[in-house]
Amino acid sequence: MAKYNGVSISVIRRMPRYYRFLRELKDKNILRISSKELAALMGLTASQIRQDLNCFGGFGQQGYGYNVPVLHQEIGNILGISNCFRTIIIGAGNLGKALTQNLAFPTMGFELIGVFDNNPALKGVQMNGFSVRMMDDLEVFCSQNKPTVAVMCLPDEAVEKVCPRLLACGINGFWNFTHVDIAMKYPGTTVENVHLNDGLMTLCYKLSDNLSKE
Amino acid sequence: MAKYNGVSISVIRRMPRYYRFLRELKDKNILRISSKELAALMGLTASQIRQDLNCFGGFGQQGYGYNVPVLHQEIGNILGISNCFRTIIIGAGNLGKALTQNLAFPTMGFELIGVFDNNPALKGVQMNGFSVRMMDDLEVFCSQNKPTVAVMCLPDEAVEKVCPRLLACGINGFWNFTHVDIAMKYPGTTVENVHLNDGLMTLCYKLSDNLSKE
Repeated sequence: MAKYNGVSISVIRRMPRYYRFLRELKDKNILRISSKELAALMGLTASQIRQDLNCFGGFGQQGYGYNVPVLHQEIGNILGISNCFRTIIIGAGNLGKALTQNLAFPTMGFELIGVFDNNPALKGVQMNGFSVRMMDDLEVFCSQNKPTVAVMCLPDEAVEKVCPRLLACGINGFWNFTHVDIAMKYPGTTVENVHLNDGLMTLCYKLSDNLSKE
Repeated sequence: MAKYNGVSISVIRRMPRYYRFLRELKDKNILRISSKELAALMGLTASQIRQDLNCFGGFGQQGYGYNVPVLHQEIGNILGISNCFRTIIIGAGNLGKALTQNLAFPTMGFELIGVFDNNPALKGVQMNGFSVRMMDDLEVFCSQNKPTVAVMCLPDEAVEKVCPRLLACGINGFWNFTHVDIAMKYPGTTVENVHLNDGLMTLCYKLSDNLSKE
């Protein structure tokens, strides 16, 4: 996959959206689409689409457009969906529970293998086929099951205690719902942050900006 | 606020992060910071910071740096935090519950005034001081309380039924956790999407890209 190195992260961030739209087309048995049609569907311009996909070598054919299942698969390959990174969720509160129950991890390149919390009241509680484990069992579990990714759904103040334990267990990928800057604090980690607050404030800006135009 | 029009959305999206770091500095009683120090703290370059803030007119003083409380307040003004948009949550499942219980809406420009679901088992359930209301009560509640923003935590397939009702109630701002493209389907709405799946796939790409370098 080294050939994708150097593609800007903003292009990468658009790929899951392509993947999603192509999946929907595929599910509707649409096998072929022009960049113009795909653009209209996605609210983009055909030239943006061609530019994005050209970063990875193109995939379209002049006069034919895109082969939907092939492009879907190719984007899946670019994203590395087939890797199936072994993943644990840290924190089985409402957010951890929502993710455990609602996300189709395998379709996004991950295999969920365990859910942890430190609240004894949650010990053994069933969530979508997973029995919540206590943080005391983390090290034994990891040495046996070798997860490499953790979904961080715990309170901010607990991260500093938990992160070094996760790193020592061989976990270096983080899907981070806390506000702690894991990537900066723990060099060598690979982190994708979900800053819900930042999104909400961006909405506030957009709405305020609209008000100013009224 | 019209003077902020034309600032690119990627600059806007960085503002909540500045706001967050400045808040932390303010809480530590740090009153003054140079762009170089702020850059080191945030993992940016001083020139990036100056460039971002110059989009709104600057705020720094040569040889002094930034006044932390003033800059924090100014960025709050840019984001429109004081607007307090009246907001309801649609869907009181695990995600809706997590947001109701954990987010400090007023610090981000919103006032949460109600939580709705269509599951009779949730009727009247208490969540952080809110009693879950049934969707049947939506119209009456909205005509009395005039929310303008909805947080969409409901299943994708329910959006098409619910959205027109929300629009008819005067709601046109959406914090959208579903995969339905509300902005495209309902022109005139203001939408901020949280595509959790897209973030997870971006993490998959980053991890796969690392593997290829090993």
